Amino acid sequence: MRRIKLKVAYDGTNYAGWQIQKNALTIEEILNKTISKLTEEDIAIIGASRTDSGVHALGNICVFDTNSKIAAEKFSFALNTKLPEDIVIVSSEEVDVTWHPRYQHNIIKSYEYRIFNGKFPNPLRNRYTTFVSFNLDVEKMKEAAKYIIGEHDFKSFCNIRTNAKTTVRTVTELSIEKEENEIVLRISGNGFLYNMVRIIAGTLIRVGRGFYEPEQVKEIIESRRRNAAGVTVPPNGLTLLKIEYPN
Amino acid sequence: MRRIKLKVAYDGTNYAGWQIQKNALTIEEILNKTISKLTEEDIAIIGASRTDSGVHALGNICVFDTNSKIAAEKFSFALNTKLPEDIVIVSSEEVDVTWHPRYQHNIIKSYEYRIFNGKFPNPLRNRYTTFVSFNLDVEKMKEAAKYIIGEHDFKSFCNIRTNAKTTVRTVTELSIEKEENEIVLRISGNGFLYNMVRIIAGTLIRVGRGFYEPEQVKEIIESRRRNAAGVTVPPNGLTLLKIEYPN
Repeated sequence: MRRIKLKVAYDGTNYAGWQIQKNALTIEEILNKTISKLTEEDIAIIGASRTDSGVHALGNICVFDTNSKIAAEKFSFALNTKLPEDIVIVSSEEVDVTWHPRYQHNIIKSYEYRIFNGKFPNPLRNRYTTFVSFNLDVEKMKEAAKYIIGEHDFKSFCNIRTNAKTTVRTVTELSIEKEENEIVLRISGNGFLYNMVRIIAGTLIRVGRGFYEPEQVKEIIESRRRNAAGVTVPPNGLTLLKIEYPN
Repeated sequence: MRRIKLKVAYDGTNYAGWQIQKNALTIEEILNKTISKLTEEDIAIIGASRTDSGVHALGNICVFDTNSKIAAEKFSFALNTKLPEDIVIVSSEEVDVTWHPRYQHNIIKSYEYRIFNGKFPNPLRNRYTTFVSFNLDVEKMKEAAKYIIGEHDFKSFCNIRTNAKTTVRTVTELSIEKEENEIVLRISGNGFLYNMVRIIAGTLIRVGRGFYEPEQVKEIIESRRRNAAGVTVPPNGLTLLKIEYPN
């Protein structure tokens, strides 16, 4: 028995997220079926990150166990010929059979949230950006972002339906860049609460519009009240960039 | 009666191109119906460029005549609330009632063709790039591009089903840039033959792969034979960027 680790990229538009569910197509279901067909085994992958419906990924991680004789690095090629176009295995490698993609020390996850800021949306960017027509002050957003970096109780930035034991998390990096008409938030941390990145993005958009002053973000964090922060912005602007496992 | 000029952007993925046809949905049909509904008139737009099935645009141009009292610059807002998400009116303005978007002197059209060059495709770029897994030599492609710039008989780069009276055209600019994993061809000229940009891209990909030396492109042009050039690459990599009308 070998354990194979896959790095997976997908366009989440047509899926009800990662995790298997009844009556809706998910990434996990497609991967289970496709790998099972290839290996002729009954495969149940273990994923690192259960991305929400409509969220994209360039580097989600999962593992599965197999007795197949296919070389570890060949799984990516073999699976890509069978997968739909919107799911791609970026790489495949063998890992220790005890290696679990969620239970590791010092995991760092990185996400990107893209805002299209213009008079009208660009139809070629609709799938991957959220559209904001109001002029956003990027400098104020950058200033506000500084309050989010570090270890905080992010209860104000968590969907109230969370199951998390603690709402304390560490944001190690948060950058905001303007790339032509797009404002790109890149955020890294040791874990993110339910909807946390999308609520941070919604809050920073409010700062950009002038609803909040940058320093109010400190108060929003300290209040530990979900309704102090901004709305949960749409999933299509969000992409899971990578998951790093320090050795 | 006023003539209104629209600048139109669209994701061509779900359309059978610009021009109205039976049994297939086109951009022209959607625009005619949407403008007719808004103005309560029977509108038939005149387009500048009849882009092919699956081709995108950021700046196609069309005009229509109306007795409606809507201010010219308000048409973009009014139409965007009624159009599907993948078609956007970027701007609207009044022009002289005799102004025709195809019959003007010195029109310059600009297109972009995007190639995703990597080991595997990026699912977030599938709609807007063509995937090439073979390593492409961008410097050779740049060298080959020089032979295409200028006035030439582009018969070798024209779909044989053309109706064009002459196959002589002038390419005013052709640049090739590498942007991370994407190779971007940007081409401008006074008019393009049927499939011309996609055949030029297909030919330059062959140069990049080493099938042709850059200087062979000169011979391909001179041969005036369609089968001397490369294949017509897929439409999804192609975007009509802009159409310029010098005053």
